[in-house]
Amino acid sequence: MKAAYYTSKGTFEVGSNAPIAPAAGEVRLEVAYCGVCGTDVHIYHGVMDQRIGPPQIVGHEASATVAELGEGVEGFAVGDKVAIRPLHFGAAHPFDKGHKHVGKNLKFIGIDSAGAFQQSWTVPAYTLHKLPEALSLEHGAFIEPLSVACHDVKLGRVKAGENCLVMGGGPIGTLIAFVLKEKGANVIMSEVNKTRVDMLRGLGFQVVNPAEENLLERISELTGTAMIDCAFEVSGSQAAVTSMTEVVNVRGRIVMVAIHGGGPRQVDLFKFFWSEIELIGARLYEEDDYEEAIRIAASGAIPFETLITQVRNLDDIQAVFEEIDNNPAGMKYLINCQA
Amino acid sequence: MKAAYYTSKGTFEVGSNAPIAPAAGEVRLEVAYCGVCGTDVHIYHGVMDQRIGPPQIVGHEASATVAELGEGVEGFAVGDKVAIRPLHFGAAHPFDKGHKHVGKNLKFIGIDSAGAFQQSWTVPAYTLHKLPEALSLEHGAFIEPLSVACHDVKLGRVKAGENCLVMGGGPIGTLIAFVLKEKGANVIMSEVNKTRVDMLRGLGFQVVNPAEENLLERISELTGTAMIDCAFEVSGSQAAVTSMTEVVNVRGRIVMVAIHGGGPRQVDLFKFFWSEIELIGARLYEEDDYEEAIRIAASGAIPFETLITQVRNLDDIQAVFEEIDNNPAGMKYLINCQA
Repeated sequence: MKAAYYTSKGTFEVGSNAPIAPAAGEVRLEVAYCGVCGTDVHIYHGVMDQRIGPPQIVGHEASATVAELGEGVEGFAVGDKVAIRPLHFGAAHPFDKGHKHVGKNLKFIGIDSAGAFQQSWTVPAYTLHKLPEALSLEHGAFIEPLSVACHDVKLGRVKAGENCLVMGGGPIGTLIAFVLKEKGANVIMSEVNKTRVDMLRGLGFQVVNPAEENLLERISELTGTAMIDCAFEVSGSQAAVTSMTEVVNVRGRIVMVAIHGGGPRQVDLFKFFWSEIELIGARLYEEDDYEEAIRIAASGAIPFETLITQVRNLDDIQAVFEEIDNNPAGMKYLINCQA
Repeated sequence: MKAAYYTSKGTFEVGSNAPIAPAAGEVRLEVAYCGVCGTDVHIYHGVMDQRIGPPQIVGHEASATVAELGEGVEGFAVGDKVAIRPLHFGAAHPFDKGHKHVGKNLKFIGIDSAGAFQQSWTVPAYTLHKLPEALSLEHGAFIEPLSVACHDVKLGRVKAGENCLVMGGGPIGTLIAFVLKEKGANVIMSEVNKTRVDMLRGLGFQVVNPAEENLLERISELTGTAMIDCAFEVSGSQAAVTSMTEVVNVRGRIVMVAIHGGGPRQVDLFKFFWSEIELIGARLYEEDDYEEAIRIAASGAIPFETLITQVRNLDDIQAVFEEIDNNPAGMKYLINCQA
């Protein structure tokens, strides 16, 4: 079978491997499509080599068809279309308080173990979520990032009619915006990349470009001075961190989606005290987020075709990552793992 | 009647004024005791002159006896012992979402208008909470800061059995610790002032001194590696801000009680994402916090006598503020406003 290996900074190599027979409780999948995540791009840039241990097969935004069932697997049949929740739960720790999706001993499939950029993939059966007939395998590859968005909106406790701001209009930010719209929120996005701004406006969103407009004034206008009930920081920038405490109103929530991994940020803690605002960290997803993502995806609420920048073959994976680096306005690149 | 005026940086002057007859909906009080708050010390240092507009009578941690009722005031009688919730609610604003205790147009009585460092004080009747017979007027002066503590613990959503850390063992931090204890939490305090450390240990609290011990290691020991479910940042220091994200466990909460008014702080936002932690701003109190504070105070759960550093006469107010500046280990100074 074909498999793409990340071998070293800037390099993928396509080779072959033997299918792994599923052990008890496991399922062997024929991977259909796998999206390229920002984390995969970080891996490609070589900054996660110590964790990855190349050569490694990465990729985790996958749809697939069940090819072979291990002993004792129930609820799935060969031929079922599935999305994969790529979490391998480790031993429970008191520190985790039962939240195993962010537990101390969590391993991420596609980072800490072999991922989906290959034809045949063997995973624990508990990672699988069945896709409904209405959902294509191409769109099924969006279930993983859409589950992130569902998780973020859930932790933000967003109610219909609330004013929400999504800071950063990449794939995750845009999916958050669609989930918010589906919940009946009044959605505003902020984004500085002009190509993305145009695309987001084309998708029907109110978009403020803080590089060209005064963000606070525009939000005040767009909300009738009420300002923001729930903001989502998805950009990873200090500029957004500075703005996030300024845009929210009394008891406003800020959901921290972005990975600010480069050291501490400058945060206005006085504003937390003054207006009793809240900052809520959100990472990955839980089982119910996958079910919610599948429901929303199947409802037709998300124009996946507009969000797909390209669908490319597994053979072309090196070219895809090179192109992503040169296309900051790109949205979602899908890899067809059977071609 | 006697009144203490803050006149300029570093100076109080005791003078006289005429009692103000209560208008409709108002009550004239004979102030009994008024505690000195950190905010009063800031005022004394001259840093709030623009807001204060000296000469001004400050003070807001008061107990009093009802002396005269304005027209239409019901539920109170001359001679009733009361605590005062010193908030003057302004016009509602969409930004406030009904949370008028931190609303845009809130005025604070004792900062934005005349406070309690005087013999006779006229205030809106809606600010009053009756004190039960079991509670002395001296201890009634603690209801205002104790309500802050009740509000902080309420917003922290603390449950019995949870591991809680209070960072900073001044008057508010200590009252938070007692409220947490009353809720059945496992309380740890961190404090660097040795005199305070000894006093807090004497009060029965587990105290870590981060200047002498490794805070994280000690907390790990004290919690059996589970770490902290809810931390209260009451110190106002960058050191505590750095520690607060390190001590909490998965979905741990951090309640921001301190006033970080000197500009942004360095905050590890990655940790928010990674362990889905929460930061919750908390300011002042709501009506139910006063009722809860009165209940806890009347129950005898708080050893007020140990927390009172001195009770001094209104005539001595200048000396009291001078002494506070020279006694960083001091806890609560009460002013007897009739003497």
